[in-house]
Amino acid sequence: MQKILLFLSKEDPLETYSINPENLSSTSGHSFQWNMLFASHVCSLARSSAGAQLVRAIIVYRLPWTWKCSKLLMKFIHAGLNTIAMILAIVSMVAVFEYHNARNIPNMYSLHSWIGLTAVIFYSLQLFLGFAVFLLPFAPVPLRAALLPIHVYSGLTIFATVIATALMGITEKLIFSLKSPAYSASPPEATFVNCLGLLLVVFGALILWMASRPHWKRPPEENAKVLRPIGETPEGTEAESTMTDGTNADKSDMRINSEAARKQNLKLDEAGQRSTM
Amino acid sequence: MQKILLFLSKEDPLETYSINPENLSSTSGHSFQWNMLFASHVCSLARSSAGAQLVRAIIVYRLPWTWKCSKLLMKFIHAGLNTIAMILAIVSMVAVFEYHNARNIPNMYSLHSWIGLTAVIFYSLQLFLGFAVFLLPFAPVPLRAALLPIHVYSGLTIFATVIATALMGITEKLIFSLKSPAYSASPPEATFVNCLGLLLVVFGALILWMASRPHWKRPPEENAKVLRPIGETPEGTEAESTMTDGTNADKSDMRINSEAARKQNLKLDEAGQRSTM
Repeated sequence: MQKILLFLSKEDPLETYSINPENLSSTSGHSFQWNMLFASHVCSLARSSAGAQLVRAIIVYRLPWTWKCSKLLMKFIHAGLNTIAMILAIVSMVAVFEYHNARNIPNMYSLHSWIGLTAVIFYSLQLFLGFAVFLLPFAPVPLRAALLPIHVYSGLTIFATVIATALMGITEKLIFSLKSPAYSASPPEATFVNCLGLLLVVFGALILWMASRPHWKRPPEENAKVLRPIGETPEGTEAESTMTDGTNADKSDMRINSEAARKQNLKLDEAGQRSTM
Repeated sequence: MQKILLFLSKEDPLETYSINPENLSSTSGHSFQWNMLFASHVCSLARSSAGAQLVRAIIVYRLPWTWKCSKLLMKFIHAGLNTIAMILAIVSMVAVFEYHNARNIPNMYSLHSWIGLTAVIFYSLQLFLGFAVFLLPFAPVPLRAALLPIHVYSGLTIFATVIATALMGITEKLIFSLKSPAYSASPPEATFVNCLGLLLVVFGALILWMASRPHWKRPPEENAKVLRPIGETPEGTEAESTMTDGTNADKSDMRINSEAARKQNLKLDEAGQRSTM
């Protein structure tokens, strides 16, 4: 257990292997090392906190005790949590770059970093578009209806990509940090962190399950007039008010069976999704 | 380009770093090396082929040119492709174990191997349950209705986990194989394989998009009586025949807005999903 704690408290989150003591001599030793320790901990803390906020933002519509809150409030909470996650993700990235630069470790060489940066870029796009389209009251209904399924899909895909990125980071950390005994000798640290990695997969799968179940959806609101885009008429409110969110994208009268009716209902569904965006 | 081809044609898929020439001396050198080369290529080929069959099995219901085929035929194709993928996955695992044992490389020490084995175990469970419940005509409707959303979710989650496992494997391969110049120096091989890894993420995201869009669904069949469980009465056929597959789990009359009606419709929907399982 002592070895596991020592492993987890190592200052370098990913690249212990490539720290060259000669690089440290360029600045005054003790203070420099403390700065590096600080940067390392900022990085780890910001990453895990960003992940936690991201998860909260995903499941915030799926918590039964929030269903009594207004949809507008929930949208603000969803946007707020995602904004905090985005800021923390940026902080952690800046800390990593600072850390690498100070130690002359190359930036952005690994697949982990490539996919991680891609995820952050798409996450920032997701945040910007989500704010502009679903939170501000200017976007027309067809645009909201067209973008909601993409918004939901993108959010969940980014989340899954973040999990994959974390798993790659854990793999790197284990290979680079465990030298004596090596990772392949399966020391207790390796077994412990492998278990954490497996738990991360289970956790990710549970969140995706919660986010994709119809039963966990926020129930439809009686009055679907909240957050109607400016200038929008209340036509079709009755149909729209039965809609929930983007994961439930296909509702139709069960007795209509022709292909034409199916297509028509799909269009109605998409237009209706905006009532609870 | 020559260096990239050399890198890709290296015989060891993951653990080039830990091959000890002394281990090779226990058997007759040349023949042993050819066997290892064969095992390595069997492993790589079986893995990629298993992935290809898995992808085909996922999207087989989403190809418009298959919509004219009977649902029963499509179910057999879906099950057949998954069975081939399972056999190939087992072949690749056996090849990896043989390879490790022959070289005295420890088995199952990495997070990549843990998550990969977990995915294969869940995949075999998925295959067995899918065959028993959805293909054989013995399972009662409520069981089919209850298991279909889990079947669809599990299939997509296993697919995402396989992608994550592949990304971890690529990370290991790059770290272990690139020594001079090292991975951190970003040689052309590293850049090339990083690009492949990114493309793998994009590919996985596209498949998940295809598998989760209502528009890409196989249209409902006019006659939903195919593959009815033995002894089942044709009650409710009209409603069931409008259902498609498990990703479309929530259909209801758009004018019904009460919570009770919503719950009732959810139950109806689930029961109806079996018509196109």
